[in-house]
This record gives sequence, C-alpha cells and structure tokens, in this order.
Amino acid sequence: MINFTVGPVQSSDAVRAIGAEQVPYFRTAEFSDVMLENECLMKKFSHATEDSRVVFLTCSGSGGMETAIMNTLTKADKALVINGGSFGERFVELLTLHEIPYDEIKLEHGKALKPEHLAPYEGKGYTAFLLQKHETSTGVHYDINLVSDFCKRNGCFLIVDTISTFLCDPFDMAELNAGVMITGSQKALACPPGIAVMVLAPSALKRIENTKCCCQYFDLRLALKNQERGQTPWTPAVGVLRQINVRLKEIDAAGGAETEIGRTAKLAQYFRSQLVKYNLPFEIISESLSNAVTPLHPTTRSAYEIFLKIKDDYGMWICPNGGDMKDSVFRVGHIGNLTVADFDKLIEAFVDMQTKRFI
Amino acid sequence: MINFTVGPVQSSDAVRAIGAEQVPYFRTAEFSDVMLENECLMKKFSHATEDSRVVFLTCSGSGGMETAIMNTLTKADKALVINGGSFGERFVELLTLHEIPYDEIKLEHGKALKPEHLAPYEGKGYTAFLLQKHETSTGVHYDINLVSDFCKRNGCFLIVDTISTFLCDPFDMAELNAGVMITGSQKALACPPGIAVMVLAPSALKRIENTKCCCQYFDLRLALKNQERGQTPWTPAVGVLRQINVRLKEIDAAGGAETEIGRTAKLAQYFRSQLVKYNLPFEIISESLSNAVTPLHPTTRSAYEIFLKIKDDYGMWICPNGGDMKDSVFRVGHIGNLTVADFDKLIEAFVDMQTKRFI
Repeated sequence: MINFTVGPVQSSDAVRAIGAEQVPYFRTAEFSDVMLENECLMKKFSHATEDSRVVFLTCSGSGGMETAIMNTLTKADKALVINGGSFGERFVELLTLHEIPYDEIKLEHGKALKPEHLAPYEGKGYTAFLLQKHETSTGVHYDINLVSDFCKRNGCFLIVDTISTFLCDPFDMAELNAGVMITGSQKALACPPGIAVMVLAPSALKRIENTKCCCQYFDLRLALKNQERGQTPWTPAVGVLRQINVRLKEIDAAGGAETEIGRTAKLAQYFRSQLVKYNLPFEIISESLSNAVTPLHPTTRSAYEIFLKIKDDYGMWICPNGGDMKDSVFRVGHIGNLTVADFDKLIEAFVDMQTKRFI
Repeated sequence: MINFTVGPVQSSDAVRAIGAEQVPYFRTAEFSDVMLENECLMKKFSHATEDSRVVFLTCSGSGGMETAIMNTLTKADKALVINGGSFGERFVELLTLHEIPYDEIKLEHGKALKPEHLAPYEGKGYTAFLLQKHETSTGVHYDINLVSDFCKRNGCFLIVDTISTFLCDPFDMAELNAGVMITGSQKALACPPGIAVMVLAPSALKRIENTKCCCQYFDLRLALKNQERGQTPWTPAVGVLRQINVRLKEIDAAGGAETEIGRTAKLAQYFRSQLVKYNLPFEIISESLSNAVTPLHPTTRSAYEIFLKIKDDYGMWICPNGGDMKDSVFRVGHIGNLTVADFDKLIEAFVDMQTKRFI
C-alpha cells in the first residue's frame, strides 16, 4: 500500500527500524537524554524562543488541543476562534465544554481568512485567539500573519494548532508571538500516532502556572516539572518518542525544518501540476493551500467511492473526508516518506480510473 | 539488554515485526475488524459478560484510571479506596481532584488486605470501591474476593485497576461483579506503551450514560459510540493496537489467559526459588505476591545502586522504585517475553555482584 493520507503517514526506514526494537525501560538517564534532545530540536524547528519549553503527551493531537485549553484558559478569558472545518468546530466544542467565553468566526469550507473577517473584533477586549494554522479537514491554510498581527494589537494569547502544517509550511513561533503550538507524531513528523507535542512560550508557562487543570493526566504543570529532567509523569509511548528522536535528527541532518518544508512543497507542486496536465475531473476546493495536502472535489463520482476503489483495486490510500463532505471531498497528502515516483503511481491510477470511466 | 522491569516489557517477535511495518490508514473496514477482534478477545480473557464493552484509549494506565473516575463517579457517590502504595495514592489524588467523596483504607507498604480492614466500613452507605488488584509499587496482590464480597453485600460499584496483574493472576470480571477493569498495553500484554484498555460491565455502561465527563478526550460515551464500529473518536496509537491484536491472538492460540497466567507463575516461582537457593541478600517485602513481580529489599546495598550497577555492568534492567522506597526496594518483573534462561542470567549477575562484594 502507498499511503497518501494526512496521517498516519509513511515512515522512513530508520524510524521503522526503531519500531522493530524492544522498547527500553525509560526511567533512566539514557531516555532522559532522548527527551531533552527532542525538546531542543522541537524548539529549533518551531523557531521558539530559548526560554520556551516543550512537552510530549501520550495522546492524539486532539488531546493536545484540549490540554492547551484546560491549562491556559479560564472563565475570565474572552476567546476568539476560527471555525472553518471539523477541527475549528472541535475547538468550539472544547471551549464550550470548558466554559471559556468565546466568539467564533465561521468561515465557509474552503474559504481563506481575510482582514474583513477579523475587523469587527478589533478592540473588543478579546484575551485569547485559537485557530488551526491549517484546517486539515478542508485543506485551508490560514494567513497566520494576519492573526498574529491582530493578537499583537489586541493583546491576545495565541494558541495555534499546527498539527498538519508543522514542517510543511513556514512557521516562526517567536516572530508570531504565539503562546502555544501543537503538533502530532503521525503528521509531518512521520512517526506512528500516539504522541502530541506542545511548544509553550513563556506567556503560556505563566498562564499554566496560574491555571488549575481539571484533568490530572493532562496537567501541564506535572508534565513541565517532569520534562525538566527529560521524564513524564505517566508511562509515555516510549517507542514513538524514540522514533521522533530519530526523525528529528534526520531532518536536522538534512538541513532542518526549511529543507523539509521545501521538499514537501515540491511534492505538492508536482502533484498539482499533474492534475492539470492530465485534466483529471477534480476541483481543488481550498482558496489557500498548504503544502501538506491537496483537497479535491471529484466532479464525476462520489469521493468516498473513489477512496474505496483506489484502496481495494490500486493498493493506495487517499484520505477520505467525514460528515457532510464524505461524498464531495477527498484529500491527497504530501507528508511522510513519499517521492515523485509515488505521485506518478497515484496519477496513473486516476488516469486508469478515468479510462475505465469510473471517474 | 534483558528487561526485567514491570513495563515496558519485552515483546514477542511477532509483535516487533508489526512495529517494523508502516502504520496503515485506520478509517477503514480493515482496521475496524482489528479493533472488534481486540474487543472480543479482551472480553474473553477478562471473563466479562457478553453484554460488557471494551474501549481502547491512547494514554497510559493512569489515564485509564482517571477516565474510569471521570466517567462513572459523581459527587453523589461515596467511595472507598485502598491506598497501600503509589498507585493507591494516585486513586486518592484523582478522587480528590474530581471531588468524589471518599474514605481511604491506608495499608502499610507490603501488607495484605484482611477482613478486619474492611469490617469498619460495612453497611455505611458506600456506593463505589476502587483498588489496585495488584499494587505494582510494592508488589502486593490484594484479595479481590474479599473486596468483591464486600461490594456485593454493600451494593458498591467496583473499579479494579488490573494494570499489572491482568494475564498474570486469575481474574474473573463477571464472577467478581466488577464494573470497570483497566489495563495497559505495556504490561503482560507485552506491547509498547501507549494504550490503556478498559473493560466495562453493563453497570459501568449505565453509569457512563448518566455522567457528564469533564474531559472530551476521555469521554467514554464518545469512545463507546465509535467502538461500536471498531473506531475511536481521535487518531489512536494504531501501531500499538495492531500489536495488541497479534498478541491477543498469540495468547489465544497458546491456550488463553489461563495458560499465560500459568507460564508467568512458573517464571515467578523459579526466580523466587533461586533467590533462596543462592541465599541472596534480598528480602521479599510483600505479604501477598502476584505472579507479575517480586518486590525485594536488599539488605546490604541501596536498591537504586543495584539497579544502576546491573544496568551499566550487566546489561539488564530491573525495576527501581521511586519516592521513599528508592533506596530500599527494587522489583523484578516476570511479565513479557522472558524465559527461565533469562532468569538464570539475572541470578548469575546477582551472584557475581555478591562475589565481588557489591551486595
């Protein structure tokens, strides 16, 4: 199977080799060194300030999103949230559950964020801003500079879900003055799922210190205290953390985050150019694309039927959408250990489906 | 390295082979089949009733403990909890955090639970009972029949942490009338850490239905709804879940839970007999042993120094204790892919340390 989903994605041979090893005992200096190196490289690749901190939680990216809210926001906040797809909707659900006062900026699926969307909220006393830098469900890459500028003008604490855009599109945490960034092990980190990574700026650390988290497992004060010595309060997904270590060092050796972003951008551009070249019956539904994924609306067949066909008859996974986009949208990811040759095979499959009048 | 800790433990070759594979995309019928088979085998091995359910959470066993409390207990409960070590203490912390009224039965480290400990609480209106069937930190295997009988007489909902005893010591969920049992992927399931497994009896399902969970990520209503079709609400540790599948089938093929318990019991007995045979300077600190682990107090040297020595000079991990037991107790686990020959090597190392007057 070739995997073109947006996670879990294909891992490198070095990452898979770690997966084959016995998982070592972890309350040791050796494992602490791995964790501290992971922290250091995550700060480097996210361009965090030196006094930022990193924690690794054993959970999904959604667990990281909820952890951010539970540990840095309170009922005294007034939050603004972008809701342009399933993950924006999840932030809204979480703010509701945790009783954080908020307003949401609803964007139509596929639409970019523009200055006029933010204008009505200027100078209205908002204290926090939450968004997906890349709304994975619709493949819309929001203009983070627009949001960062708004936050700087309005004194908002900025929580950025970078789950599917980290290492795919440029991100400079310090320059953006973001408080929290969240990513997951199974996106461009290209490791098995199981770990959410959070980079926390000093502004976040201060909020965490003054917030009582309602869930012990996700209490960032405990996570931060333990990570001081490269440990975690609870048994973590040790295997995945070791794989993250190998992967971060791989990226570092290859030239760092910018090189990896460039590599992904080239794959995305190549795939998109082939779509045009072969005149495939798919429309790109996003006004503002990330390098991570191409969201497509097939005009001649149900998106979900195409997903099933390509899985069962061609041995490839593309990424289906859920909910009301199930039949209208599928996505093709450009993250993980993929090459131009893989995309050639995918295009070939689409062309074959077209020849056979399936699409 | 040979790993004699209580988790992560050594995996079989078949489990490690899965670790080397690419992680597949999981919103598919194929992965649903794996999850439904996992549910079926977990019910079989825990001797749960047919109408029980199983959920797989991407977190540690401690996450499972907190999930049980958040989803089945409320402020209207009156809980009784056994606190005889670090994990009993964790239950106490969690009950405090979640504002569940409780009383704790404090037991001295290493001491067994006896009828006189429960007697004062008879007929006092307790609605829930929480305990570690095996308090991993001190290696005390509590008399679960005593607790089950108390719960039956007093109408208590029973939450059992079986994290380190599942597949090591007999457990019959239906006969005990337990509401919840919790285990983790990295104990006798002998897979990498990352997954907590919860078996939920109908009594638990009813409580879950009527309890508002304060954390979306751990909301068992969402987990149960998704598991109906073999899925999870959030991206799970797909790789570990596939490894659990291989492992459960391995156990099934070898004769089921009872065979695995027998195998572990033999290793424990063998190790303990060798301790006596070689007259090693270690005292067993538990009045009531599990087959999972032997907790030892070394009489001639700091337990932590022995842990370091055996790691660095002999290439083996034994399990250190934390907190105030750091220097006085270490543990030797009998779970995971270990053989008599492995224990011979450990005994040999201890004898060598004795010859060299390190212990």
